[in-house]
Amino acid sequence: MTTRNNKGVLVIVSGPSGAGKSTIISRVSQLRPDIRFSVSATTRDPRPGEIDGVNYYFKTQEEFWEMIKLDAFLEHAEYVGNSYGTPAAPVDNDLAQGYNVILDIEVQGAAQVMEKRPDAVSIFLCPPSLEELERRLRGRGTDTEEKIRDRLMAAHREYSQAHKYSYIIINDDADTAVRELDAIITAERCRSKYFLEGENTL
Amino acid sequence: MTTRNNKGVLVIVSGPSGAGKSTIISRVSQLRPDIRFSVSATTRDPRPGEIDGVNYYFKTQEEFWEMIKLDAFLEHAEYVGNSYGTPAAPVDNDLAQGYNVILDIEVQGAAQVMEKRPDAVSIFLCPPSLEELERRLRGRGTDTEEKIRDRLMAAHREYSQAHKYSYIIINDDADTAVRELDAIITAERCRSKYFLEGENTL
Repeated sequence: MTTRNNKGVLVIVSGPSGAGKSTIISRVSQLRPDIRFSVSATTRDPRPGEIDGVNYYFKTQEEFWEMIKLDAFLEHAEYVGNSYGTPAAPVDNDLAQGYNVILDIEVQGAAQVMEKRPDAVSIFLCPPSLEELERRLRGRGTDTEEKIRDRLMAAHREYSQAHKYSYIIINDDADTAVRELDAIITAERCRSKYFLEGENTL
Repeated sequence: MTTRNNKGVLVIVSGPSGAGKSTIISRVSQLRPDIRFSVSATTRDPRPGEIDGVNYYFKTQEEFWEMIKLDAFLEHAEYVGNSYGTPAAPVDNDLAQGYNVILDIEVQGAAQVMEKRPDAVSIFLCPPSLEELERRLRGRGTDTEEKIRDRLMAAHREYSQAHKYSYIIINDDADTAVRELDAIITAERCRSKYFLEGENTL
């Protein structure tokens, strides 16, 4: 009865660019050795220094299409003429070993994963407001005015999907956001569905 | 959009006597000032030192029956000739003020609350095994042999209900159990249903 099956939790994290997703995820993964990240497959050419299986799984168009036909992706999409996807097998392998796998993924890909894996835990991470997002994007000083406007419009579209996620984390204060993401993973691992009924354990 | 409505979470905690519930709940409430406990109503006589509204709401049989008819209880039960119940109004008042309310309650009462409040978060807290529970009950040195056997049989019955709870916490190590209960409350407060959609906030 009271034995956990030791399966990991699949965690989807989405949110507007500039919400601080990478920072929060990276800080939580430093706290928790039980976290792994998925590696995407892509048809684009490797850039200098990129390693197959580490940065991406590099695939030909034919290989990618074969994987789609085999339903081997949790989600896939086109972006500027190239295909990107999340292969299911390595994710499932990590989950079976007890690792919690984080997918840092945009809202359309997230919707595909939620459909395929209703058990996945979905988290929308966002800044307190669009005004604050704009302030942060300008603060980075890396984007042109046009790029900032694009990102804000994309954020506006993404916000409208926030309620499809199980959880919302408002990244107002980074320490709080880190604590909340960590707590969600800890809590989800306590879900009763992960516990086995067995005559010997009770 | 990204404003939390500040409503608290109703947390049901059940588990066998000897599982360490009181200790874990008390330690978590020391960590979190946002926790309150419900006060039960009862028809039994006050014992010396007990204060109405603090230890219990002391009610006559008639008053108690009126409350049942008004559907004023989240749950109620008979125990050794007296009635006990959890009045809904003070709980709702605390929740509306943003407090998380913990109901430390046995499995039958918990089932009533889950039915009335599908939004309640239910947690089953248990020792790693019946053998360990037996060891702990004997270790306390407070119960007769017969009493211990009664408690173990009750625990066995309760265990069979564990899967009706959203979460299971195995109190193997108290620090871990405290961390898990704390995490579940933090996580549940991040549920997207608690966030308001508003044109001004986004």
